[in-house]
Amino acid sequence: MTTFVLVHGSWHDGSAWDAVVPRLEELGHVAHSPTIAGHGKGADKAVGHDDCVRSIQRFIVDNDLSDVVLAGHSFGGSVIARVAEEVPGRLRRLVFWNAFVPLPGTSVEDDLPPSYRELFARLAGESADNTVTLPFPIWREAFIQDADLDRAKAAYQQLSPTPYQPFLDRLDLSRFSRLEIPKSYLNGTDDTALPPGEWGWHPRMSGRLGLHRLVQLPGSHEVVFTNPRLLAEKIVHAGRD
Amino acid sequence: MTTFVLVHGSWHDGSAWDAVVPRLEELGHVAHSPTIAGHGKGADKAVGHDDCVRSIQRFIVDNDLSDVVLAGHSFGGSVIARVAEEVPGRLRRLVFWNAFVPLPGTSVEDDLPPSYRELFARLAGESADNTVTLPFPIWREAFIQDADLDRAKAAYQQLSPTPYQPFLDRLDLSRFSRLEIPKSYLNGTDDTALPPGEWGWHPRMSGRLGLHRLVQLPGSHEVVFTNPRLLAEKIVHAGRD
Amino acid sequence: MTTFVLVHGSWHDGSAWDAVVPRLEELGHVAHSPTIAGHGKGADKAVGHDDCVRSIQRFIVDNDLSDVVLAGHSFGGSVIARVAEEVPGRLRRLVFWNAFVPLPGTSVEDDLPPSYRELFARLAGESADNTVTLPFPIWREAFIQDADLDRAKAAYQQLSPTPYQPFLDRLDLSRFSRLEIPKSYLNGTDDTALPPGEWGWHPRMSGRLGLHRLVQLPGSHEVVFTNPRLLAEKIVHAGRD
Repeated sequence: MTTFVLVHGSWHDGSAWDAVVPRLEELGHVAHSPTIAGHGKGADKAVGHDDCVRSIQRFIVDNDLSDVVLAGHSFGGSVIARVAEEVPGRLRRLVFWNAFVPLPGTSVEDDLPPSYRELFARLAGESADNTVTLPFPIWREAFIQDADLDRAKAAYQQLSPTPYQPFLDRLDLSRFSRLEIPKSYLNGTDDTALPPGEWGWHPRMSGRLGLHRLVQLPGSHEVVFTNPRLLAEKIVHAGRD
Repeated sequence: MTTFVLVHGSWHDGSAWDAVVPRLEELGHVAHSPTIAGHGKGADKAVGHDDCVRSIQRFIVDNDLSDVVLAGHSFGGSVIARVAEEVPGRLRRLVFWNAFVPLPGTSVEDDLPPSYRELFARLAGESADNTVTLPFPIWREAFIQDADLDRAKAAYQQLSPTPYQPFLDRLDLSRFSRLEIPKSYLNGTDDTALPPGEWGWHPRMSGRLGLHRLVQLPGSHEVVFTNPRLLAEKIVHAGRD
Repeated sequence: MTTFVLVHGSWHDGSAWDAVVPRLEELGHVAHSPTIAGHGKGADKAVGHDDCVRSIQRFIVDNDLSDVVLAGHSFGGSVIARVAEEVPGRLRRLVFWNAFVPLPGTSVEDDLPPSYRELFARLAGESADNTVTLPFPIWREAFIQDADLDRAKAAYQQLSPTPYQPFLDRLDLSRFSRLEIPKSYLNGTDDTALPPGEWGWHPRMSGRLGLHRLVQLPGSHEVVFTNPRLLAEKIVHAGRD
């Protein structure tokens, strides 16, 4: 029996894992899916990256969780790397699922290709609350291309504008590389939320982990919606000892 | 119901799609598989790239096709990119299946690795009619390696010498990047017709499309022969809205 | 009916193929799995690369094998490339399975990423007999990540310290590229024994073969233990004409 804490990415909230959690439970595990501060519908979006980190850290501490396999998706990777610096003793393994692994002293934005950097800056500037709304064509073509159009639209309704400031904050992360917590990278072989190649997830991000376990699954950046049962099974493979 | 127009690659003709079309029809679609000018057995091989483009353009216009998903394989990618510039209003989406996406002002040959460039120039020079016959060992090892030898030989009998001039013609393509037609790239994960890496199909060619949908399937450059039903299903996923 | 000679990698011996050989036999073939000189438990580890080559060469000659499909895994790739130079007339095809394909005049060590180079030099220096023992965490995370922990531990018991000198010896290999023996590369898509990317197996090593056949299979560097039946089937596909 493993205790999983699942940390969603930008535009998502904890409900993204609603079909993954029951499958993990079927497999005999416990799974939590907290929402990051500043994320989700109706949340106060005026947050920085530290607020994001503290919200997950507090969730783990307040629930007195230990021996946790902490998994982060996409932006959530930058959160779990920082959380690991804060509560290393409570963690058994980190799982980065098509997730950012920022270099010490850099921001998530530093790892975005120029086209996204320009788009997000413009969208945040045009918003009333310094948030970025993901344009539907990008969602449909590059994030959830393995769904049919109806499912892509339905899942899009679950998204909400994501706070921009956490992309910009530089993360110290000087302790991260010295942590002795085992690490896994879970890679969707069809994931194009970051464009494959020079700016892609794998091996660019996975390669920053040092010794780690690679687990792969077919599917897009959003298998959490399009194939949640397989995702759960791969999270188990990524998270086991 | 979608109308597909399927454009074959070099050495092939429209009959390459003979096992794909019925599966598309089973799935409720309409599919056409015209032969490019200068291609196929008995054709007059004295053509340039413009002749290739005009033959497909004319097929679409003469049959008064609209709302077309236009798919191109290999060399056919360079044809559909140009056709899209000529009849954009008739097209719903472009699907590039392990296909060339030439940069404006370049030729297909510019995207070939040096070894192919030298080989094709030599073979064309040695031919009576400026054509290139694909050597069987290249076909067997690098194009259709997922077939057994008998099937590889049988499919080779369907091929014919391909006109060389269309490889050399520089394509303007200045309008292509401004077209608002959605685009997909269909990638065979075992395709080695172009050598993986620096000279490979993906992400080199797919990355030139800007925002696009990536769909992948296992198999060689010739799944049109070795797994036509799966190819048809993936063309539907690549071509849907 | 094909005669296979299967050459294991470092830390392994011929028994690594114990579950592959019966499946090849079921499929109608003959398979041999000799142990390389200096490898296996109880062997005299004072060997150089030439000793490794001669032991496999002698196995083929002493058993008067001909028309052999010679397959090498990992370090075994450097052995079969050299054996092919010595007994080309006995070989029908070479199959490199996530294997080294050294450039003429270089050593296996030249193809290792710096982290492995430093680690292996240190471990060999600390050993009594100039051997490298593979640390369990590397085995578990980067070599056999598709096994559960029990299976990973059981397979680890089959390993033994590997002689270091064969990694260092420079291999002439000036005849290798001129051999007319067909070649295949068998690539495990989840193999991280060499880190994917700049230092990865594919397409770095496969690209050195010139015209070759690529066959891929899912799984880690150690599918010989985690999926031997699939490995056997893929070896047949890689090895057929």
